[in-house]
Amino acid sequence: MSFFKEGDLQNGSVRLSDDGRSIVIIDQTKLPMTEAYLTLTTKEEIYNAIKILAVRGAPAIGICAAYGMYVLSIPKKDMGYDEFAAAMKADGEYVNSSRPTAVNLSWAVKRQMAVIEGNKDKSVPEIIELLKEEAIAIHKEDIEMCGTISEYGLSLIKPGDGILTHCNAGPLATSKYGTAIGPMLLGKERGIDFKVFADETRPLLQGARLTSYELTKAGIDVTLICDNMASMVMKNGWVQACFVGCDRVAANGDFANKIGTSGVAILAKYYGIPFYTLGPTSTIDMSCPTGADIKIEQRDPEEVKKMWYKEPMALEETKCFNPSFDVTDHELLTAIITDRGIVYPPFDVNLKKLFA
Amino acid sequence: MSFFKEGDLQNGSVRLSDDGRSIVIIDQTKLPMTEAYLTLTTKEEIYNAIKILAVRGAPAIGICAAYGMYVLSIPKKDMGYDEFAAAMKADGEYVNSSRPTAVNLSWAVKRQMAVIEGNKDKSVPEIIELLKEEAIAIHKEDIEMCGTISEYGLSLIKPGDGILTHCNAGPLATSKYGTAIGPMLLGKERGIDFKVFADETRPLLQGARLTSYELTKAGIDVTLICDNMASMVMKNGWVQACFVGCDRVAANGDFANKIGTSGVAILAKYYGIPFYTLGPTSTIDMSCPTGADIKIEQRDPEEVKKMWYKEPMALEETKCFNPSFDVTDHELLTAIITDRGIVYPPFDVNLKKLFA
Repeated sequence: MSFFKEGDLQNGSVRLSDDGRSIVIIDQTKLPMTEAYLTLTTKEEIYNAIKILAVRGAPAIGICAAYGMYVLSIPKKDMGYDEFAAAMKADGEYVNSSRPTAVNLSWAVKRQMAVIEGNKDKSVPEIIELLKEEAIAIHKEDIEMCGTISEYGLSLIKPGDGILTHCNAGPLATSKYGTAIGPMLLGKERGIDFKVFADETRPLLQGARLTSYELTKAGIDVTLICDNMASMVMKNGWVQACFVGCDRVAANGDFANKIGTSGVAILAKYYGIPFYTLGPTSTIDMSCPTGADIKIEQRDPEEVKKMWYKEPMALEETKCFNPSFDVTDHELLTAIITDRGIVYPPFDVNLKKLFA
Repeated sequence: MSFFKEGDLQNGSVRLSDDGRSIVIIDQTKLPMTEAYLTLTTKEEIYNAIKILAVRGAPAIGICAAYGMYVLSIPKKDMGYDEFAAAMKADGEYVNSSRPTAVNLSWAVKRQMAVIEGNKDKSVPEIIELLKEEAIAIHKEDIEMCGTISEYGLSLIKPGDGILTHCNAGPLATSKYGTAIGPMLLGKERGIDFKVFADETRPLLQGARLTSYELTKAGIDVTLICDNMASMVMKNGWVQACFVGCDRVAANGDFANKIGTSGVAILAKYYGIPFYTLGPTSTIDMSCPTGADIKIEQRDPEEVKKMWYKEPMALEETKCFNPSFDVTDHELLTAIITDRGIVYPPFDVNLKKLFA
């Protein structure tokens, strides 16, 4: 069952179950001390797994949603086309409402709906088979994209460089290698060593629990720091580049990523350190003009006020602000590293060229 | 026994016990859910209380050390002068070795040693009485200084302003009002309301456990945020000034304060928000030329890797960097607010004038 084990970090955190009727994910809320797996079959299970971040990372959410649409279609095989399409549309909207910021979720649901809508001439069982093929295609594309992104990222850094990353954009968040972590994993395969500084990433500690876990298991030199230590680490001259993921890139290059990313970008600019975001082109939302148009998810204050739900750290009556993401201004960004190449400023012009 | 209770937040966290033979402190490691008190009588108890941060905040540590020197002198009343002075010097050095960064600790020990060395002509019991008077004087001076600092701070902000603070520089860290938190507490007494944003301040969460506790209890509008949310809060236009404390100010205006302070200062500069540090003149160390000369305490990685010692958040073998303080460059600082006035740039010139 375990497809994510020591020495085998390259295969992401989402797959179809052996019987092909469910999704199996590694439960990212249990890491790093427990490698537990969840089997998702119903739309509620899929919604909840995304909502509670048992599966997280924009590309992994997209892959999960793509397989999810297939899995949810299986019990509908005896429906007529219209009933099937309507039921799938409702399921897709429900799954899509689990988290608002990452574009990959709605992108994957839309790709599967396009399969349904583009094959009205086929039987429902045939469409269901096409949904399976599309999900596998989305998964394979992500594996390829991560490989290409990792190659581009690796071309921008030198052996021995210190790389600071925020949150988790490694294999757990994607399908293979990851995006922001990919260059270091690919480098390791080729005998090139880097020193990685992983922001712990409050409140849910994806950097501590996931990134430092993945890199430690992969034998990469990683140092865990609290988010507020990044300034000192940069000042000490230990960081030659910042690599972060992205949840949605606007047409002008502004991008949403895990809360705190914009702060890292401002520190990098102050200390003169290049700052890159890495992500597949599916993360670029050309229909979104600027960062101001990206909806930012607000999460439960309890995530901040209780340490991993064990110990209250503030009074019950204390107010709390808990945005899941922030928007980094494109002026702080050195380049966007995508599977179609490295995009430099002016982003509004060069992102258009990417899609031309 | 309780001198720090709801509605009575102004009297700090350190005092002499009712029998005058011990120090009583509120145990800051137990807040916010438990108000527990510790009685310190031996040098080991005093050392440990400072070391584990049961008493913390540069001025409070100074007051604790001053009372500590008195309490440690009591059992030595039958010694001759030379034996007494040597034993007190050894005790002072031991207490002083508990934490390296805050200047107030060594400053308070030195002040008490000066009492001992300047009164060789008196009997040891007389000197012990003078040590008690000096400790009370240091405590009273801090109360006055906090009041003056709070007045100066209040003069720089407008009713309704949003104030961002990092770590804790309130009554718990001092004797009354606090330094960075003082202007808001003083304002509250006068019916002037502010909106405070409290960085939680990883790893030990002084902002969550102490600052948001003090302000919530005082009825001040406080919103707790994770350290990495400060950039978004500033970008949203919610912050009109940053107020932070200081553990040691160098002669050129560089200053050490809780880890993460320099990051807040860089964000404030980027967003065009004034950034102030507030502290008594005892925190200014004119013998320290620049921030590069300030020794930074490194603490146990377990503070980062285990959430308040309950749940491991990273693998045992993951490396960790855990500095307790960082140095903020004087170029990021709008002004230093002291009990002797507001010091503006050029700091090297104007700090000298302050002591002239």
